Amino acid sequence: MPEAILDEISHRRYNPLRGSWILVSPHRTKRPWQGQQEAASQTTLPQYDQSCYLCPGNERAQGDTNPDYTSTFVFVNDFSAVKEEQEDYRQSDDKSSLSSLLLKAESVTGKCYVVTFSPKHNLTLADLEPMEIVPVINTWTQLYTAHISPQSPLAHVAGPTTLPPSSQQASIPRSSAQYRYMQIFENKGAAMGCSNPHPHGQIWTVTGLPEEPAAELEQLIKHRREQGSNLLEDYAKLEIEKEERVVFKNDTFVAVCPWWAVWPFETMIIARQHKRALVDFDEGEKKDLAEVISDVTRRYDNLFETHFPYSMGLHQAPLEGKDAEIEASHFHIHFYPPLLRSATVRKFLVGYELMAEPQRDITPEQAAARLRNCGGTLYRNKVP
Amino acid sequence: MPEAILDEISHRRYNPLRGSWILVSPHRTKRPWQGQQEAASQTTLPQYDQSCYLCPGNERAQGDTNPDYTSTFVFVNDFSAVKEEQEDYRQSDDKSSLSSLLLKAESVTGKCYVVTFSPKHNLTLADLEPMEIVPVINTWTQLYTAHISPQSPLAHVAGPTTLPPSSQQASIPRSSAQYRYMQIFENKGAAMGCSNPHPHGQIWTVTGLPEEPAAELEQLIKHRREQGSNLLEDYAKLEIEKEERVVFKNDTFVAVCPWWAVWPFETMIIARQHKRALVDFDEGEKKDLAEVISDVTRRYDNLFETHFPYSMGLHQAPLEGKDAEIEASHFHIHFYPPLLRSATVRKFLVGYELMAEPQRDITPEQAAARLRNCGGTLYRNKVP
Ligand SMILES: O=P(O)(O)O[C@H]1O[C@H](CO)[C@@H](O)[C@H](O)[C@H]1O
Ligand SMILES: O=P(O)(O)O[C@H]1O[C@H](CO)[C@@H](O)[C@H](O)[C@H]1O
Repeated sequence: MPEAILDEISHRRYNPLRGSWILVSPHRTKRPWQGQQEAASQTTLPQYDQSCYLCPGNERAQGDTNPDYTSTFVFVNDFSAVKEEQEDYRQSDDKSSLSSLLLKAESVTGKCYVVTFSPKHNLTLADLEPMEIVPVINTWTQLYTAHISPQSPLAHVAGPTTLPPSSQQASIPRSSAQYRYMQIFENKGAAMGCSNPHPHGQIWTVTGLPEEPAAELEQLIKHRREQGSNLLEDYAKLEIEKEERVVFKNDTFVAVCPWWAVWPFETMIIARQHKRALVDFDEGEKKDLAEVISDVTRRYDNLFETHFPYSMGLHQAPLEGKDAEIEASHFHIHFYPPLLRSATVRKFLVGYELMAEPQRDITPEQAAARLRNCGGTLYRNKVP
Repeated sequence: MPEAILDEISHRRYNPLRGSWILVSPHRTKRPWQGQQEAASQTTLPQYDQSCYLCPGNERAQGDTNPDYTSTFVFVNDFSAVKEEQEDYRQSDDKSSLSSLLLKAESVTGKCYVVTFSPKHNLTLADLEPMEIVPVINTWTQLYTAHISPQSPLAHVAGPTTLPPSSQQASIPRSSAQYRYMQIFENKGAAMGCSNPHPHGQIWTVTGLPEEPAAELEQLIKHRREQGSNLLEDYAKLEIEKEERVVFKNDTFVAVCPWWAVWPFETMIIARQHKRALVDFDEGEKKDLAEVISDVTRRYDNLFETHFPYSMGLHQAPLEGKDAEIEASHFHIHFYPPLLRSATVRKFLVGYELMAEPQRDITPEQAAARLRNCGGTLYRNKVP
């Protein structure tokens, strides 16, 4: 790259999607590490675990019993972070306006779901074939569809707003409330706060647009206004042209270590054309999405020959919003994985990162090169 | 409080200092935890460790030998994240403006210091008496002073810009470059990426104003413009009046679990009067600062009777900047500690938090009440 010198010097990179900066210190990986080691991942789980609250047929914390599901399974989180019904809150109309300015709050309601990716306790997205990931994408799409505002330009694209057939699912009544945003995500691995290895993700649906998608939406809208084009479409094109940060691509998606990556092996899956949300994809495009998810998660596991921990999340159009917001939205997936040097040595985003600015050691270009080098069969399936 | 209902319902709180929101789910602490456990802290360290690169008289990674220092000791980080000298970088003037918009970078130079808090390997800030913390504050102040721009309104307050006497210090030549910001911070404990228990903090001094202080400065300036008063002075007053989030106070400082706290037992030490930076404190006020740091760190250790991990950082005026920036700055210290339920169970800020918005379980009021209840003698010094 013409910016080869960025391999050698400390610099800041701008994230146009969030409108923020990060510090890159490529020379710093040489320092020795004497700190905390992560526990190596357990690789010998059973297919079925009688004590797992996600396995088919098992009882959950609040007494419900899981059906004998065969693909994905959705239920309302037994310990939801937000609830559908709660007492109302109006900020007390304190005489002093300073108090209402400095102690500001608003009520949040919503609905939290858990989605299992497979009935088998010991599989992960990396273990599934792309065609086995398609049902996960369909389930996400159905849940998203079921919550789209009837006023949204996406409503007619989405088709009937029914939830997945309930023979295999916990019964999920359609909420009467209209929520603003749906965050679909997965925490994988103990290092990322996951308390159950059974392959699953979560969905938190809330009133109020959360901070991260709000920051991105602002930037996406600004780019459309100022450039007359879509930021992530432009960016995907540019990265495919430059090649150096591309990890994998197919007709519909490209996976890159973004120019502005914070986490050591952070990747982003971007729709190459302008797609607002899951409902904009046809069957072929969903297969492409399954393929790129499968590819990225396998490379991750292959990199250090371990169950690679990460937090992953989908960003797409809000469920409800101004047309300009829905139209500027661009479907993408972030993967934030903490490992840096090996299966047991992670990057800590702590003091300087929390107080001042995110900081990374290896460059995104170096990370992408390493991920490009570890495609193919999943290491644990290789015949020795 | 009139907002008692916020103890029961999920809600968002606004952080006027950063201009951002967080999600609070007070009902959620009831969920069982089956995830990762932190290693319990080692409590039986020796006073001197021959293999520690921070102990007096020992050799460091790059071959330098530490003096036989008796109080604090400052040296330039052997693995600095930023360097004083490096090749220059100018963004390549690509024909396509899209590329310079989406792949934007700037060079960063700077200087990173390590500051030990005590020659004794097995002490922490919580073990030190307030009068033993005063030298740490003096060392911070001297380093800050040595880097203030001669054009800053703080320059004449600060006095001579000399570094600490070097008999006890590694030789630290005054940099010729003028840096924009100095971030003083401490990572404590393995859970917060600290790789050496010897009591020490870091100082990263950089060109370019980092993200966090930049966001705060914007809000501080806005408040002065719109309210004609200082945000953190107003806030400190309000909290002292309300009492419910106050952990400790003396004449100069108040320590609170802020209304908008993200980390479970997050606290903030705020100067009660408008003070721009360390150099604005007289000797008595520095003693008060030592007292509040000592108090907070002891309460932390007492809470779960453990060496409480945290990242801590000082926010104050930039070294160089517009007068309006320097004048709006307000000295405060953030403590971000991860533990939630016990010495081994932490809060993970992962999927939803990274993709959507920070989320907390217990309320700041509950956290403050618990911290108020564990003052007094440090648990490990109590005679049984
Ligand atoms: O410099 P240290 O203590 O080795 O490193 C620690 O603090 C730094 C500053 O917050 C982080 O960038 C590192 O990830 C962390 O491990
Ligand atoms: O709901 P879980 O998986 O128990 O919890 C995990 O993910 C949540 C959403 O990111 C976080 O708030 C929790 O701190 C984390 O432990």
